[in-house]
Amino acid sequence: MATIRDVAKKAGVSAATVSRYLNNKGYISDEAKHVISEAIKELNYRPSMIARSLSTKQTTFIGLIVPDIVNPFFPELARAIEDVALAYGYTIVLCNSDEKIEKEIHYITTLQQKYVAGFIVATSHAEAEHYTTVNLPIVAIDRRIHSSIPLISTANREGARIGVEHLLANDCRHILCMRGPASVGPANDRFLGFMDAIEGKDIQTHVVECPFQFEASELAAREQLQQHAIDGIFASSDVSAAGALKAAYSLGIKVPDQLQIVGYDGTMLASQLTPGLTTVAQDVYKIGALAARMLIKLIEGQEVTEQEIQIPAELIIRETTRSGSQ
Amino acid sequence: MATIRDVAKKAGVSAATVSRYLNNKGYISDEAKHVISEAIKELNYRPSMIARSLSTKQTTFIGLIVPDIVNPFFPELARAIEDVALAYGYTIVLCNSDEKIEKEIHYITTLQQKYVAGFIVATSHAEAEHYTTVNLPIVAIDRRIHSSIPLISTANREGARIGVEHLLANDCRHILCMRGPASVGPANDRFLGFMDAIEGKDIQTHVVECPFQFEASELAAREQLQQHAIDGIFASSDVSAAGALKAAYSLGIKVPDQLQIVGYDGTMLASQLTPGLTTVAQDVYKIGALAARMLIKLIEGQEVTEQEIQIPAELIIRETTRSGSQ
Repeated sequence: MATIRDVAKKAGVSAATVSRYLNNKGYISDEAKHVISEAIKELNYRPSMIARSLSTKQTTFIGLIVPDIVNPFFPELARAIEDVALAYGYTIVLCNSDEKIEKEIHYITTLQQKYVAGFIVATSHAEAEHYTTVNLPIVAIDRRIHSSIPLISTANREGARIGVEHLLANDCRHILCMRGPASVGPANDRFLGFMDAIEGKDIQTHVVECPFQFEASELAAREQLQQHAIDGIFASSDVSAAGALKAAYSLGIKVPDQLQIVGYDGTMLASQLTPGLTTVAQDVYKIGALAARMLIKLIEGQEVTEQEIQIPAELIIRETTRSGSQ
Repeated sequence: MATIRDVAKKAGVSAATVSRYLNNKGYISDEAKHVISEAIKELNYRPSMIARSLSTKQTTFIGLIVPDIVNPFFPELARAIEDVALAYGYTIVLCNSDEKIEKEIHYITTLQQKYVAGFIVATSHAEAEHYTTVNLPIVAIDRRIHSSIPLISTANREGARIGVEHLLANDCRHILCMRGPASVGPANDRFLGFMDAIEGKDIQTHVVECPFQFEASELAAREQLQQHAIDGIFASSDVSAAGALKAAYSLGIKVPDQLQIVGYDGTMLASQLTPGLTTVAQDVYKIGALAARMLIKLIEGQEVTEQEIQIPAELIIRETTRSGSQ
């Protein structure tokens, strides 16, 4: 296999010049560029990516940090990111943080030692100090890390408002809001959207905080349904809504006749449930694809004009709400 | 920051000796080992992982090739693999093959150039030629790639038989088998298990081939339910069973009163569905964790005695079958 020295010899230049050419750094005359590119072609030279990364301190790996790939929102996100990454010659390193700051820090430290080219961060920790010292491009998904780090998110507050207004339009008057963890930014935005929708209206409400996790949500919903005459549930994630649906089923409460449920996320789970879950759908694929595209631009030194992109959410009406009364 | 030369100088040995020490290759005297390790401690030297990988031609990245991370079996598998990898200092590179051989080959080629340390392969292609030339440790999940490549799988045939026997014990006499793609090894094993269960019994059966994909499965189940008086469905994946459940719901067929359904996989989806899906559960987490552990042993040159590990499947009875008649 041809080496960088073979290319240099054939082109009649120094190995250092070939290296500058390969890494696109420093001055090289047009003539040198031409002879090097010819030599590379003739010798069918393929630079070792890892040798290049040693000199450029950069690989084509992108670190993707998610809370937990088992929550169906994140495989769909990862899928979109990987599709775009593949098209640009990058590959994805998968990191689950479990919302634990020490796992996040571990991954950020380790992956920097391994010279990843950048990070896409979809975790939801409020503390972000450990990101500000990272000297690599980062794109955040769904929560603001720092004003210098671009953010792609759904218009969560507006989306949640639309979801709750759908319950109101369907005559729900006693609504349970299953808000996500108070430490999670997007969950708070969705809670604000819930408050926007009910403000000034004669609606009885209950609010319960529960994680984006099925069993905990089922339990929380069951307790609330046993205690109160709830006729509508707005859940801050599809997984939580699935838990609520299960709780209603086990209590013999008919959905949507006695209880209507609106989820949030628009994951495949929502369509796979029976009855199908009415949900506020984030454009997960678009979010992931945009984040990947933006990160690759930053890695490759291209200009990124927008520091924040908000993508509208869309209500998808299925069978857990009375669509007839729309 | 200390370099390898600083360590060599302090220890009074050559840089080459320090390199041999770091990469655990070639002879080094115990005395040299001792002075090098002291020098490393004193200087707080941390070898650049990428510089090491250049000399060892090996990183601590593990390539994980799955058909599609969006199928809920695979996030759970990826999660287990990542948990073990993390404990041993490895990280996971995520690759979706979409069951396309050219994507598989692309990833295998690219990741070898990036010096990944090994592969865990959970795709289902019959052709495996492109793996036999890979000069890196590989562990296969669920399908045999080559006799030299260790395999971790569920006892699929046995598992499927148990699932179908549960339908028979629940008085199903007109059973639809939604088998997976004929090109997928584990799907074939499950089909054989179906045949084992019905052999010699007075049972009417229909068999339909459909992908491990929700919409296609829903459509296939709806067609079959419209054409035949089916009272039991054995689906070769939970995703397909979810499609069948949805089809029954949309046709007004009551589950489990008129129709009983058994899935396969034991993913979280099965428990999140309403009614909860009776399913033949693979121990996904154990499969992933074992595969990761075995691969890391191979990477680190430890002995692996077992070339094939089969993990039993377990029937989990929920609400899509009449557990009362158990």
